[in-house]
Amino acid sequence: MCGIVGYIGRQQAAPILLDGLSKLEYRGYDSAGIAVYDGTQVNIKKAVGKLKVLSELTHDGAMMPGEIGIGHTRWATHGTPTKENAHPHYNKEQTIAVVHNGIIENYLKLRNKLESKGYEFVSETDTETVAHLLDYYYDGDPIEAITKVIHRVEGSYALGIVFLEHPDVLYAVRKDSPLIVGQGKDGNLIASDVPAVLKYTREVCYIQNNEIAVLKKDAIEFFGIDSEPLEKEFSHIDWDADAAEKGGYEHFMLKEMNEEPKTVRDTLNPRIVENDVVIEELGMSDEEIREIKQIRIVACGSAYHTGVTASYVFEEMARIPVAVEVASEFRYRNPILNPTDLVIIVSQSGETADSLAALRLCKEQGIQTLGIVNVVGSSIAREADRVMYTWAGPEISVATTKAYSAQLIALYLLSIKFADVKGLLAKEEKKELINDLKKLPDQIELLLHNKENIQKFATRYIAAKDVFFIGRGIDYAISLEGSLKLKEISYIHSEAYAAGELKHGTISLIEEGTLVAAVITQQHLYQKTISNMVEVKSRGAFVLAVTNEGNTEVEKAADYVIYVPETSHYFTNSLAIIPLQLFSYYVSVGKGCDVDKPRNLAKSVTVE
Amino acid sequence: MCGIVGYIGRQQAAPILLDGLSKLEYRGYDSAGIAVYDGTQVNIKKAVGKLKVLSELTHDGAMMPGEIGIGHTRWATHGTPTKENAHPHYNKEQTIAVVHNGIIENYLKLRNKLESKGYEFVSETDTETVAHLLDYYYDGDPIEAITKVIHRVEGSYALGIVFLEHPDVLYAVRKDSPLIVGQGKDGNLIASDVPAVLKYTREVCYIQNNEIAVLKKDAIEFFGIDSEPLEKEFSHIDWDADAAEKGGYEHFMLKEMNEEPKTVRDTLNPRIVENDVVIEELGMSDEEIREIKQIRIVACGSAYHTGVTASYVFEEMARIPVAVEVASEFRYRNPILNPTDLVIIVSQSGETADSLAALRLCKEQGIQTLGIVNVVGSSIAREADRVMYTWAGPEISVATTKAYSAQLIALYLLSIKFADVKGLLAKEEKKELINDLKKLPDQIELLLHNKENIQKFATRYIAAKDVFFIGRGIDYAISLEGSLKLKEISYIHSEAYAAGELKHGTISLIEEGTLVAAVITQQHLYQKTISNMVEVKSRGAFVLAVTNEGNTEVEKAADYVIYVPETSHYFTNSLAIIPLQLFSYYVSVGKGCDVDKPRNLAKSVTVE
Repeated sequence: MCGIVGYIGRQQAAPILLDGLSKLEYRGYDSAGIAVYDGTQVNIKKAVGKLKVLSELTHDGAMMPGEIGIGHTRWATHGTPTKENAHPHYNKEQTIAVVHNGIIENYLKLRNKLESKGYEFVSETDTETVAHLLDYYYDGDPIEAITKVIHRVEGSYALGIVFLEHPDVLYAVRKDSPLIVGQGKDGNLIASDVPAVLKYTREVCYIQNNEIAVLKKDAIEFFGIDSEPLEKEFSHIDWDADAAEKGGYEHFMLKEMNEEPKTVRDTLNPRIVENDVVIEELGMSDEEIREIKQIRIVACGSAYHTGVTASYVFEEMARIPVAVEVASEFRYRNPILNPTDLVIIVSQSGETADSLAALRLCKEQGIQTLGIVNVVGSSIAREADRVMYTWAGPEISVATTKAYSAQLIALYLLSIKFADVKGLLAKEEKKELINDLKKLPDQIELLLHNKENIQKFATRYIAAKDVFFIGRGIDYAISLEGSLKLKEISYIHSEAYAAGELKHGTISLIEEGTLVAAVITQQHLYQKTISNMVEVKSRGAFVLAVTNEGNTEVEKAADYVIYVPETSHYFTNSLAIIPLQLFSYYVSVGKGCDVDKPRNLAKSVTVE
Repeated sequence: MCGIVGYIGRQQAAPILLDGLSKLEYRGYDSAGIAVYDGTQVNIKKAVGKLKVLSELTHDGAMMPGEIGIGHTRWATHGTPTKENAHPHYNKEQTIAVVHNGIIENYLKLRNKLESKGYEFVSETDTETVAHLLDYYYDGDPIEAITKVIHRVEGSYALGIVFLEHPDVLYAVRKDSPLIVGQGKDGNLIASDVPAVLKYTREVCYIQNNEIAVLKKDAIEFFGIDSEPLEKEFSHIDWDADAAEKGGYEHFMLKEMNEEPKTVRDTLNPRIVENDVVIEELGMSDEEIREIKQIRIVACGSAYHTGVTASYVFEEMARIPVAVEVASEFRYRNPILNPTDLVIIVSQSGETADSLAALRLCKEQGIQTLGIVNVVGSSIAREADRVMYTWAGPEISVATTKAYSAQLIALYLLSIKFADVKGLLAKEEKKELINDLKKLPDQIELLLHNKENIQKFATRYIAAKDVFFIGRGIDYAISLEGSLKLKEISYIHSEAYAAGELKHGTISLIEEGTLVAAVITQQHLYQKTISNMVEVKSRGAFVLAVTNEGNTEVEKAADYVIYVPETSHYFTNSLAIIPLQLFSYYVSVGKGCDVDKPRNLAKSVTVE
């Protein structure tokens, strides 16, 4: 899940590389390194830990002269986060330097082979294999060497390469790991993701699998896998670079939570036309919608949780069966697909490796796909048959908040549309649902304003070891996300359980004082969930309830209650998740964790 | 989830009640109590904690004279485990005593009403409401009073009742909580489950919802909800009472693990006839099998995990789509069912409340149901359209081992049968699968023999706070069960994750030394799982791998490897789970936990 950058142009490369890497730190921050050609040799500087260590070491790049270079921020996959394992990696003569994002799956075999030929390895990484392999095949022609290498490595990669013998050219190639090329006025760039180049250009080209990009100061060329020249188009990016800054907030996560009302509005409003749901980009006729017999939602992490929520919504509202599947499982289980299935892939980045692979698997079988994606022009957005964008803008914090909220809205809209087409929504009911949707942004705003109470409550649980989230139905889906949020940024082992399932084993972990957060927003399940709250309470748990305004009965079974405003029972996730996001945030802040960049994690999981 | 017993006859009641309760402790052990009529009054003795406290208090019952009584072992639902909340409960004049298993859902309303009429409550339980309500409606005729009460309470209950004014009669009634009547030579009994009466009789009658049983010394009568007399049949029980004893093992769990080879053999052999799978009791024609378009497996806890395993097996082998659902979720989500669905309910006890409710929901909609059940004559066995028994015999330890293994076998057999009928199994392939099945008992035996290594390994993790289990496909299903086993008996917070999903958040919990158990038995996923092992290892995790013999490649990415014998990739769960069961057992023993009766848990979850 690393991030790579590269620059060639008229300016000093190192500061540009460091700046680019700072925009990619969300992809990993175990170590960082840059390689720059100084007119004589290719110099490498690396440092363990976050980027600022490297920045200090190189005086923000000032002490590394040269106008061509590559950089890397690492999320360790093979080998521990040490300086030796940090990128870039050299061949022995230091004439070739490589940065790599991805996993070379057959690296052990290749390494054994190279070692038998006398190559010596200084790191435990799969990437160093690539450097030596390039050396092995290099015979004066970089493109020939690169082509030979990509024919021999298995797995995923985005590579940036510098050859000492060709100091005026920067090479890049990718397969199944993202890579873009940016065309700037003062030079050209490569990067794993758009924000890294936004300061220098808005003209961006997405490299496809096994395409080789050859960047010079004033020119960019592309070649196919047989070295044939390719014509490729550049897109113009509208994102505001300032949007990727914190704007006065202490953390990106807090900023992004505060953007949730806007995000929900932006994702919702263009699709509400005169009290009707209009999803123009969907491009499905009513007939096509009616033909859908089964929906499959495939996603990872928080996006998977929006799918769990949507499964309850679609099944009840539109009476279409929904199977929700973790992408890494779906793609390897030889799923039984039917031509009347609609597969929805949900991904913020649009580059999630497993989700993308799942999408491709469905397409190969001729199954209709719909991407719900935040990043315009990303792989999933480009490859899905249909795409519905979530208008959340760039999300920087590793723990998603606003993109999650936007995904929910997209799924609600789809469900209303489908139910309506199927004739399952009375006019009045549809009107009410749309009205409830329209109220969500203000209601979220209100919940965000009441953050002090949650902050106070959170400070009590900074030392917690274990937390459980329970709920039934949609409340279970909310619990999944509330739990993941807490564990990923506060390192507290929290776990979500269907409330009725807790007593089949996990309840044995409840001790005096264990925090159990019960989500209880589904009126027809109030009594059932209250019974489960009483069960854990009678075993000593401290019970936090998140429930609808007016459900005061819950106070008998809870030690602390957070009320959320009234909305349709379909949409309660959009409200109940806000205090849970705030709770996680304040616990993380209270513990002194790095909120936006939790350990071991990366924003966009572009390896399996 | 409590257990109740009752006795009326020619012997002293208290020792029989205590003995019966000792067989029901698996249902809960927060507190216990008995009520016995001594010729003058109804005396009650109660004690917090396990049954032995009460046994000591009453000198094994000797100090409580009388030949009619009721008893209770409690798993707290409403109110903490205190003496006041322990059963039996009285009315104020102590003329009516009640024991109750279940939950009275409208008890707060009833309590308010009774309090307004001057009734005083001494406990926080829902049960005390029943005692006062009986008092309120009692006018000399117990059956009339009981009928009025059951018309007014909502929820689930099995009640045992003694009236001072009718000291020669024991009353019992139930709804949605299990209750049986045993007809003995020296007296008659009621109990929540069969083992409690086996020492005194093999003649047992299952009471149905809202049926009232009236027991006298020499006679048993039954009445319907309108007090009309009923004729009911008794069944003869074959279970060996000795089978419910530990037989020299330190714990039931260890004994039951050692019974797994026999259990697998007993469940398998009768269904293998001349190299063919013959499931006579299934009673489905080939045509009926071919008409099944979708299988739904509905279960709780470990039984749910056998369903997850089976979903991979059925989909790949028989190409029938499988949806696996937690029963407590399924029953309340208004599931979309089709006449071509087959719903499989998996339950050891056959009394799991949510699973039973799910079964009834399907039957109401005319959907075909198949129960995979261990207890003969249990509610699910009786109510399902078809039943396939797992021949595991009585399972006493709260953490299931042998019943789980038997459930797997039943599901494998079904899958082979279905695949064969659909023409998807070549003759040779079927033969190999059946051969692999036949080898399982000996292979399990072998794994059990190698327990010392696991015991040694387990001692290192007695102090662990968090453990993670990862795997892909069937290995994920195995991880789920391995994790549940550990958490339920050792109180270590373990969690199972699809290996590819870990990095979407949960990997942030991996620290130096965190134990990660990787299950890696699916050859086509070896490389993918190894990548995930390397990821956690490079973050400091100690990686335990459970893999197939011969897969030595895994040693590069693991710190400790347990090998299991070669079998079909469909059946690896049956082998890989054995070392994980042993691991949990030895960690629990090492920590000094009560292996067979972990805190907060009960064997058979007969409340929601």
